[in-house]
Amino acid sequence: MSHNTFGHLFRVTTFGESHGPTIGCVVDGCPPRIPITEPEIQLYLDKRRPGQSRFTTQRREPDAVRIVSGVMDGVTTGAPIGLLIDNVDQRSKDYGEIKDRYRPGHADFTYDAKYGIRDYRGGGRSSARETAMRVAAGAVARKVIPGVTIRGALVQLGPNGIDRANWSDAAIDENPFFCPDPKAAEAWETYLDEVRKRGSSCGAIVEVIADGVPAGWGAPLYGKLDAELASAFMSINAVKGVEIGEGMAAAALEGETNSDEMRTGQGTPAFLSNHAGGILGGISTGQRIVARFAVKPTSSILTLQRSVDRHGDEVDVRTKGRHDPCVGIRAVPVGEAMMAIVLADAFLRHRGQVGDGVGWPFPRSP
Amino acid sequence: MSHNTFGHLFRVTTFGESHGPTIGCVVDGCPPRIPITEPEIQLYLDKRRPGQSRFTTQRREPDAVRIVSGVMDGVTTGAPIGLLIDNVDQRSKDYGEIKDRYRPGHADFTYDAKYGIRDYRGGGRSSARETAMRVAAGAVARKVIPGVTIRGALVQLGPNGIDRANWSDAAIDENPFFCPDPKAAEAWETYLDEVRKRGSSCGAIVEVIADGVPAGWGAPLYGKLDAELASAFMSINAVKGVEIGEGMAAAALEGETNSDEMRTGQGTPAFLSNHAGGILGGISTGQRIVARFAVKPTSSILTLQRSVDRHGDEVDVRTKGRHDPCVGIRAVPVGEAMMAIVLADAFLRHRGQVGDGVGWPFPRSP
Amino acid sequence: MSHNTFGHLFRVTTFGESHGPTIGCVVDGCPPRIPITEPEIQLYLDKRRPGQSRFTTQRREPDAVRIVSGVMDGVTTGAPIGLLIDNVDQRSKDYGEIKDRYRPGHADFTYDAKYGIRDYRGGGRSSARETAMRVAAGAVARKVIPGVTIRGALVQLGPNGIDRANWSDAAIDENPFFCPDPKAAEAWETYLDEVRKRGSSCGAIVEVIADGVPAGWGAPLYGKLDAELASAFMSINAVKGVEIGEGMAAAALEGETNSDEMRTGQGTPAFLSNHAGGILGGISTGQRIVARFAVKPTSSILTLQRSVDRHGDEVDVRTKGRHDPCVGIRAVPVGEAMMAIVLADAFLRHRGQVGDGVGWPFPRSP
Amino acid sequence: MSHNTFGHLFRVTTFGESHGPTIGCVVDGCPPRIPITEPEIQLYLDKRRPGQSRFTTQRREPDAVRIVSGVMDGVTTGAPIGLLIDNVDQRSKDYGEIKDRYRPGHADFTYDAKYGIRDYRGGGRSSARETAMRVAAGAVARKVIPGVTIRGALVQLGPNGIDRANWSDAAIDENPFFCPDPKAAEAWETYLDEVRKRGSSCGAIVEVIADGVPAGWGAPLYGKLDAELASAFMSINAVKGVEIGEGMAAAALEGETNSDEMRTGQGTPAFLSNHAGGILGGISTGQRIVARFAVKPTSSILTLQRSVDRHGDEVDVRTKGRHDPCVGIRAVPVGEAMMAIVLADAFLRHRGQVGDGVGWPFPRSP
Repeated sequence: MSHNTFGHLFRVTTFGESHGPTIGCVVDGCPPRIPITEPEIQLYLDKRRPGQSRFTTQRREPDAVRIVSGVMDGVTTGAPIGLLIDNVDQRSKDYGEIKDRYRPGHADFTYDAKYGIRDYRGGGRSSARETAMRVAAGAVARKVIPGVTIRGALVQLGPNGIDRANWSDAAIDENPFFCPDPKAAEAWETYLDEVRKRGSSCGAIVEVIADGVPAGWGAPLYGKLDAELASAFMSINAVKGVEIGEGMAAAALEGETNSDEMRTGQGTPAFLSNHAGGILGGISTGQRIVARFAVKPTSSILTLQRSVDRHGDEVDVRTKGRHDPCVGIRAVPVGEAMMAIVLADAFLRHRGQVGDGVGWPFPRSP
Repeated sequence: MSHNTFGHLFRVTTFGESHGPTIGCVVDGCPPRIPITEPEIQLYLDKRRPGQSRFTTQRREPDAVRIVSGVMDGVTTGAPIGLLIDNVDQRSKDYGEIKDRYRPGHADFTYDAKYGIRDYRGGGRSSARETAMRVAAGAVARKVIPGVTIRGALVQLGPNGIDRANWSDAAIDENPFFCPDPKAAEAWETYLDEVRKRGSSCGAIVEVIADGVPAGWGAPLYGKLDAELASAFMSINAVKGVEIGEGMAAAALEGETNSDEMRTGQGTPAFLSNHAGGILGGISTGQRIVARFAVKPTSSILTLQRSVDRHGDEVDVRTKGRHDPCVGIRAVPVGEAMMAIVLADAFLRHRGQVGDGVGWPFPRSP
Repeated sequence: MSHNTFGHLFRVTTFGESHGPTIGCVVDGCPPRIPITEPEIQLYLDKRRPGQSRFTTQRREPDAVRIVSGVMDGVTTGAPIGLLIDNVDQRSKDYGEIKDRYRPGHADFTYDAKYGIRDYRGGGRSSARETAMRVAAGAVARKVIPGVTIRGALVQLGPNGIDRANWSDAAIDENPFFCPDPKAAEAWETYLDEVRKRGSSCGAIVEVIADGVPAGWGAPLYGKLDAELASAFMSINAVKGVEIGEGMAAAALEGETNSDEMRTGQGTPAFLSNHAGGILGGISTGQRIVARFAVKPTSSILTLQRSVDRHGDEVDVRTKGRHDPCVGIRAVPVGEAMMAIVLADAFLRHRGQVGDGVGWPFPRSP
Repeated sequence: MSHNTFGHLFRVTTFGESHGPTIGCVVDGCPPRIPITEPEIQLYLDKRRPGQSRFTTQRREPDAVRIVSGVMDGVTTGAPIGLLIDNVDQRSKDYGEIKDRYRPGHADFTYDAKYGIRDYRGGGRSSARETAMRVAAGAVARKVIPGVTIRGALVQLGPNGIDRANWSDAAIDENPFFCPDPKAAEAWETYLDEVRKRGSSCGAIVEVIADGVPAGWGAPLYGKLDAELASAFMSINAVKGVEIGEGMAAAALEGETNSDEMRTGQGTPAFLSNHAGGILGGISTGQRIVARFAVKPTSSILTLQRSVDRHGDEVDVRTKGRHDPCVGIRAVPVGEAMMAIVLADAFLRHRGQVGDGVGWPFPRSP
């Protein structure tokens, strides 16, 4: 069962709510003797941390992570790694008025429908606050696959895309959007300021890229690398679509156009293109892995909306409080983390089933 | 671990290759005392069966399913249900020439890279032949959730979409494309004939709709209904993108537009729109569930393509044999089946964790 | 995968080491709207708490549990329940001298052999300290199955058994051994004092009984109730044997003697005996469930023992520090907890697969 | 979930009933490029095959296994291995009279209580017929761990034990009991003949030994090697107790006696004894692994027994048909198979989490 656990051999279990005292996670199955420190994890948490620009929620959470188990003298021991973050800036009183009201687009109604009870304080368990633990676990996952580099970027903000000709990795960390196109980032600033001032919100598309993944990771048929990525990304708050390589656009292509031809390379085939996004048959090809996911606009908006309450009465709801005008922005480090977790798990499972040293060409083939 | 198993409490394990003697699956966890017969399963297999029009592969497989366990006197017993289908029209000799060659877009290279060995006969385990077992298991899954109706349709073939104003459920079964728009179906016929004659192929988008799902199914955070659907659909051969509700287009929307407002309904809120596709916070809302997935163009095309072989030599590959010019078409019943399996599993898990009878409004709330 | 997670639909994940700052667990899948408070959990922790008599370790741990998630206003919400206990009386300096030495009977050597690293402080992850979290999780599990009563008792201490004719449930809590036979308890006091003063240790047998389990729980074939109990008990530190009903003694019986005949009862068959321990075919019979497990003598003894160190040198080891002369005593509440967890999980899975209301006689039978 | 699946990275799913047309299993996660043939599997099935002496059931089942997937040209491909055995000698009419009657000691009542329906034909799913698939899967598992030798033996038949001084491995295959003590085997023959002629039955104790397991397999805390063995053995029909090393007798020992001291050995510590049965802290020590399980007497006996039927009426039941007077005998190859499956799974998981090459002494230690 997988309610609050993700992964198999490298597996992450999270707990905690937006306005509880502490959120945490358990990273189980991490290989031993891997150096890992709190500052290394903090680095990634700081990328996701709110309140760093006017485009994210003003809730002030230092997100200071503590490693409480599984690490001794700075290296992992093979025991489960317990990670805890105390919540410090929850303001539950902000939420009193939506205690009984269902905010459109939120999980308020569905949690009540499922459980007959709902932690209304800041969204409770359904809050994106939980994603802090994903980022922390993702930092550990990266250490498990040291040859792999994972980077996320925002490639669309509301209706505004980027010009891929302008792509600059360096630019990603130089604007408040994780935008790789510096020109687009300027335009987005104007756009999102306008949206924010209107009390509205917008969606976004996040792209996550992994370089350095060797051929062979991912286990068909129901542990396919792309299926696990799809599950991982779709489990992030507000995500409504996931794409690998060409994604939905693959539908419009013909066989010749979509084909990734090969020529000989250095120890592995040199693919002449990457429409597949680095995954064929659920197994990595050795190319760059390219995935995207769409984040819907933040459901908390100032506009008065029609709704009902838990007593069955019709009410109008306006969501105040502190919110991100575009939750897609802070989803970038979360997407990176989920990619790292999926890949670390795929690596360990591959090593388990197949062992080290299989590759192309295949001296061990029969 | 989930290599060849899908689901948790209702779980399906498949085995078998394209050119082996038999393919099969085990449906475990199915509730007892559910009537199920071979003809009921056959009905769905016949929808997926190849060779029914010139637009699908000419391989002749009757796909006659046998129930070998778990059913007594026409009803399930609670024991695992074994389903077997014998392969009858495999022609392995067709594949001799691609024995050592990697067909671009196929999983040939990646299976070799992972396992150091590859069943080249008709794609072996990576063949879409396996999806017959998904359809069979899906037929059982439908019986577990009798109040739910699941229908799939092709909403885009290559670059050609449908006009939703023309949508007719009845039309879906009246053309070789599972196309709900009779006019589009005509145009598609011309288009695909042309593609087919060129020896090329095209992609497609499948939409799967579930009606009758009550509010409350799906278990956050990593067993979210949409995450499980994403994993299920992405595990289907050639799928590169998955969408729930607005899908990737949600990115371009603003909060007011994307919002699904509510008014009081009959025992459950009446949503005034369904941008969310029937899922909020990973839990069903009680609305129609709407999901889509994109299938890339069939990788087997007649055009000569550059590639390499398993010895590391550069070769040119042209894929002959019997193939679907658009694998997206036969993916429609497979998508329906995966939706059924996901929902049956979500239902059983929900009933396990929460029990029967929770709903809105909530008399059992504290 | 199940490294540090136990259970399926009701599942427990633990983390933390003997001498780390905090130990904790996540109880996932707990049904919603169940009242649970910290004092209720503390009650069971206090039974296991060390330092309550001269027969258990003198380490002073209040084992004060905090609920940090999953509970709101005193009832569960369906979200994962995070439970934390801070360690307060670890004295890691006691362990400096066994840092590189392998204590016979401990997991020192095997953790090093597996992981190439070992947390030597108080046994690290292999310490029975972790069982505190099992007890905490077990307290939650009990609330999931309110009709079920679970009691453990020590039925053998070293070579000394009890006289079952003297069995008194009340006596169990009136001596430092959880011994149901007051006379035996007196003799045990003398015996264990002598063992303790010699710096030695002894083994024990724990019996755990569950009353009120209805017929039908447990899922054959690999989720059999007895198989899950066996796994649960054997996962407790120092356990070397597990028995259901007659246990190992069943081997010596003949069919007529071992048989549990039936006559009609109140809504369920009245069994005339219970050699089976309440489980047939892996499914509960509706009778009392009876299980036992043997705990080996504490491996930490004052006698000088031959061993090796991690450098490969031969060394002699004497284990000082604070230890239980018989770890079997404090294993009683741990055994109860594992029984509760297994039953809660079996109940939820049964409800999921079969639904409420199945029983004997069977009005719903076909 | 684990209803009909055992194992994690090496995992076995079985299906089929005693009197259905076919029984089968899926072995998933088996590493690629392992040579395996039907005759190799058949070898082990023949050890378990009924009808080979007057001490086992006279049902004539050739148990001819077919590999239908996952193997190409005699080696595994990494795809799931489908194994099928057709039932040929089922005589369902023998069971008509127990259709509605609950045989004491059998799972008749509990299956009905759980599922509201029961396949009464030869015990249906609860029949030991399923263990044929365990033996087949175990044969594959052995190939995954080629350095490991697994042997089972019957060490007690009814009340009659063996004299361990007479132990002869060669003797095990030279009598109808898998008895390692030739003298005991003679006495058992007389004893069991007498039991059989009375229409009665007796229990037995099976010991399973694994040599060649390196130190380091097994993953604490809930994937402990001994916990997985306990679950594996207890899942076998009629098993009521499981022991590792000293087993239940460990309770009566004191610390000095139970201790396994160490001296330096060849690349690994040389243990001076093996009370632990080769497992410490849930991890293999590198010593011989020793486990035992008790099998209760066959519940099918000729003596008239008091019972009830599914209508709630009191009935008397005498079980005719073809039965083993001691099911413990044929449980020997089943026990070996479960040991092999547990070890193969532990090996793959260990390799996944830790990689190849960790051992004692530890050059890679920090």
